[in-house]
Amino acid sequence: MQILFESGITRIKATPTPLPGERGVRFGRGEGLIRTIKSVMRNNSVKVFAPASIGNVSCGFDVLGLAVQAPGDEVLLSLNNSKEVTIKEIIGDEGRLPLEANKNTAGVAVIEYLKSIGVNQGVEITLYKNLPLGSGMGSSAASGVAAVVAINHLMGALLKREELLPFAIEAERIACGSAHADNAAPSLLGGLILVRQNHPLDIVTIPTPKELVCVLVHPQIEVKTKDARSVLKATITLKDGITQWANTAALVAGMMKEDYELIGRSLVDVVAEPLRADLIPGFRKVKEVAIQNGALGCGISGSGPSIFCLCRGVENAKRAGDTIQQEFNAMNLNSEIYISEVNRKGAYVVK
Amino acid sequence: MQILFESGITRIKATPTPLPGERGVRFGRGEGLIRTIKSVMRNNSVKVFAPASIGNVSCGFDVLGLAVQAPGDEVLLSLNNSKEVTIKEIIGDEGRLPLEANKNTAGVAVIEYLKSIGVNQGVEITLYKNLPLGSGMGSSAASGVAAVVAINHLMGALLKREELLPFAIEAERIACGSAHADNAAPSLLGGLILVRQNHPLDIVTIPTPKELVCVLVHPQIEVKTKDARSVLKATITLKDGITQWANTAALVAGMMKEDYELIGRSLVDVVAEPLRADLIPGFRKVKEVAIQNGALGCGISGSGPSIFCLCRGVENAKRAGDTIQQEFNAMNLNSEIYISEVNRKGAYVVK
Repeated sequence: MQILFESGITRIKATPTPLPGERGVRFGRGEGLIRTIKSVMRNNSVKVFAPASIGNVSCGFDVLGLAVQAPGDEVLLSLNNSKEVTIKEIIGDEGRLPLEANKNTAGVAVIEYLKSIGVNQGVEITLYKNLPLGSGMGSSAASGVAAVVAINHLMGALLKREELLPFAIEAERIACGSAHADNAAPSLLGGLILVRQNHPLDIVTIPTPKELVCVLVHPQIEVKTKDARSVLKATITLKDGITQWANTAALVAGMMKEDYELIGRSLVDVVAEPLRADLIPGFRKVKEVAIQNGALGCGISGSGPSIFCLCRGVENAKRAGDTIQQEFNAMNLNSEIYISEVNRKGAYVVK
Repeated sequence: MQILFESGITRIKATPTPLPGERGVRFGRGEGLIRTIKSVMRNNSVKVFAPASIGNVSCGFDVLGLAVQAPGDEVLLSLNNSKEVTIKEIIGDEGRLPLEANKNTAGVAVIEYLKSIGVNQGVEITLYKNLPLGSGMGSSAASGVAAVVAINHLMGALLKREELLPFAIEAERIACGSAHADNAAPSLLGGLILVRQNHPLDIVTIPTPKELVCVLVHPQIEVKTKDARSVLKATITLKDGITQWANTAALVAGMMKEDYELIGRSLVDVVAEPLRADLIPGFRKVKEVAIQNGALGCGISGSGPSIFCLCRGVENAKRAGDTIQQEFNAMNLNSEIYISEVNRKGAYVVK
């Protein structure tokens, strides 16, 4: 699967696929569209799961993201007659996220989607915030993705899955101030996603080998994306650049060749990791022991503090994960650990 | 095919594959080895062709190289009883290359190979220098590769093909002052080669799609590698770095997915090309018209002045090549043009 389209919601060609029972019919905007959507809607509520994602994947700084099976956020969407998008409740955020729909990625994604298709529909959102905030696991992207998949489902799958990406990106931009596709794209579409270009958006799905298992360990400290960005430098040496693109290219080749050893050798980040390592207590030691204990490679997920490993098989993943957690325990640092295969289908309807 | 071994000739494990008729026999060094080699040698001379290669392939600066079917250098090697490696003649270089064996890539490759296997053998080299010097087509690498493949052939294929690479690299280092694998590796092994790492050497063969056709156009100006290196800067912006590794990764994905459009979109170099473009008269215009006339993408081969295009199919390649040549003609600049498929087997014995 590969997508190339202009980014920015206004550029999307709203040429929806025919709805079930409506083959061959193309929809215009406005009232006619609403009537047609309503005629095919069987339910007026849906719950969607959108997975966490490993951002950067070491060498692929700002360009690679990998979806995991778990954990993830869930969004329950219910249609109503209010003509307004509201957030009813957020469960699991300890009151830290805004309840205003236009300040929350889930809310913004729904608002922008409805605006784009020209439908003024009342929607009530319940957000099950399972992903820790500021964890480097693509938490804000997952909420937006779950919401836009949910509203599209309720609108009769008016847009194709890949056409939903700009709404999720726009939601992150409005709600978080920055718009990168490297978490939203894998959460929406599944798998390992390469963002070749942001404007216009050009993303490439990279196949991953069957036995690849992901470990995410979230130590209970917070690293703000802003802080993790501020330690980066505006320039890098040409030498480091060459090392980085050699590894990024080799990582893609390793994935597509199902060469686990090559994947391991390529999980090297000489650009961001050396500068961010100090933001995570004990990172260097943790990485070392993880690789000694089953991990093909280990790095910082997104801007941290979560640490990821890629492993061959579940046993290796458990071993690497346990080792990391023990290492954090020894530093009196609690951590949550998630072990799962690659999520290859992206966000999905759960009921 | 993928190789990982320590670079530097001394680190090679000289565990040769059994020779024909000698299955199961492992050779030691010295006299015993010479006797065994002689017993399987049928000819005491051989001619080997080694192809030119497109260095960098745009975004893959310093890490990618692509072998073409033609043109290439040829080396004729004859064994004698002199115990010395000598260059009998170089044809096609207009007297510009040194005839001292220890200053010429072909000579050095043979000397280092013989030194490594511990054989004191007289060898006479004739070099058919078909590749223009300083052209950016991997000319010096091709001579060294042809020579080392030839001597290994005469020694009864004592080393595996991939084990010959360090000799070709070492030959370039000694004869030219710099050692990169990005020309030697594709010339030796064929195909598109990613040099993930130089020390220790780690190279990856990237499959290329069937209909991929290469165009090389060599305008009759000389750009010295030294000058092409000196225009580069020691640092790049992080932004440009991100663009470069996104494209390098996408180029590898495009090759492996046989996605010609993606290959075209990924052939973007924001690091070296903008700085080197001015060294080649009319480069920007040439590139523009090539892409308008059949090229998926176009860039500088190696450090130039040769220009390469990748195209889908021969017809497109001819059209792009003709257009480039016309453009150079309009500037009163003569050029040679080479159109060929990807060379997937590397250097080979011609007689």
